[in-house]
Amino acid sequence: MSPFQPGQIRALVFDVFGTVVDWRSSIIAEGQALSKAKAKHNELPEINWSDFADAWRAGYVPAMTKATTPLADGSTPWANIDVLNREILDGLLPRFGLEPLTEAERAHLNLVWHRLNPWPDTVRGLRLLKASYVISTLSNGNVSLLVNMAKHARLPWDCVLSSELARQYKPHPAVYQMAAHLLGLEPAQVMMVAAHPGDLRAAHKAGMRTAYVPRPTEYGPLPDNAPPPDALQSDAFDITATDFVDLARQLDKSAHT
Amino acid sequence: MSPFQPGQIRALVFDVFGTVVDWRSSIIAEGQALSKAKAKHNELPEINWSDFADAWRAGYVPAMTKATTPLADGSTPWANIDVLNREILDGLLPRFGLEPLTEAERAHLNLVWHRLNPWPDTVRGLRLLKASYVISTLSNGNVSLLVNMAKHARLPWDCVLSSELARQYKPHPAVYQMAAHLLGLEPAQVMMVAAHPGDLRAAHKAGMRTAYVPRPTEYGPLPDNAPPPDALQSDAFDITATDFVDLARQLDKSAHT
Repeated sequence: MSPFQPGQIRALVFDVFGTVVDWRSSIIAEGQALSKAKAKHNELPEINWSDFADAWRAGYVPAMTKATTPLADGSTPWANIDVLNREILDGLLPRFGLEPLTEAERAHLNLVWHRLNPWPDTVRGLRLLKASYVISTLSNGNVSLLVNMAKHARLPWDCVLSSELARQYKPHPAVYQMAAHLLGLEPAQVMMVAAHPGDLRAAHKAGMRTAYVPRPTEYGPLPDNAPPPDALQSDAFDITATDFVDLARQLDKSAHT
Repeated sequence: MSPFQPGQIRALVFDVFGTVVDWRSSIIAEGQALSKAKAKHNELPEINWSDFADAWRAGYVPAMTKATTPLADGSTPWANIDVLNREILDGLLPRFGLEPLTEAERAHLNLVWHRLNPWPDTVRGLRLLKASYVISTLSNGNVSLLVNMAKHARLPWDCVLSSELARQYKPHPAVYQMAAHLLGLEPAQVMMVAAHPGDLRAAHKAGMRTAYVPRPTEYGPLPDNAPPPDALQSDAFDITATDFVDLARQLDKSAHT
């Protein structure tokens, strides 16, 4: 691939879960509020909502793999993330003592993924980036999830692109190719922004530029003695930024040099 | 279909060409600017840009029909609106004396459809509607056209949905069904907004609610003795509004009664 020239970038596409929104703390907060609302009548046992959030997230990759593995007849048992999240949730209900929840309450809890909260820099950073670039999601979340999340968190997307439109999940190359195609751009005019190196490596293979924005507390608070984020990553991507505001600053600076 | 209950509406999806933007005056203005820029060196003949805009638009429906008519082998020769507009434009170049334009100038002129201007009420009306509903395009324009137009005209969409995602053109039912499905809604929770009764009738058949917003000057200024818009239309749709601000007012009013 030719050297990175920031002036070539026309659109930024964003991973969402973990990169744009803090899924873990959002799920914990909503779970704790649910426990509190149910406490009057002792309807639920004491629940470790951190463990619950982690367990739900842990089911995500296996569920996507299953949903995109061809069946014996050659067809693909595609299902979107709302459906996969519900299947994972149903499997967790006994383990966490959530069986007293009604069907309506289970359906509502499943849609907590539509109500995730942004990182503190997210909205300000996106607004800065939107002034110079097309900004879009490129998430494994389904379109309605991403649209509802944007309403909830005031994310100012120009476009909502989802793996759902390709009926494949990242890191499948078809998802990245679809995004560039629908935006009417060459892959090299598109920069993938993610907190996850695997997503960025797949975007790079598809010809996109890459911005790595580590979110070190995605999986929970760091212990006091945690080492600094892996410095090695920095060299593997076109930009490494501490957050979205820093990303906007770096792109703005490099576009004027 | 059951009686219209405004409280059921969760999303409004909008036809774009003619309903949201004034394609005709936008193309005329850009054409006149092009003539002026070329006047120094007499590069172009005198061009009637109104006739040009009308001729370009007249090629639109036949081109979409051709692009969605199955071939002998059963495949569909799908092409998006950027491609179809360019084919129509190329056919018009000799007739309007536009052959002196370079390839880059032709390509730029073709993308005038990405730079169309909104009606005077559009942005204010969309902002009002966005406060209570998900607002999305549902246009035969391709995704990149709609995204670039939104940047140009500051259209605050929550989502950009296009016939391109269904590889069919409105009024094919698959386009309306796709929109409701991707928004995670029942068709009856979605209201199609359009200046074109045929689009609304197709949306209604697909189970959507309908709002008719006539744009009487879409095809040019009305003569002084023009009759009022066909009052008959009003009864055929759930709402008839004079513009998007009126639509917001009517929906707000009916939601509180």
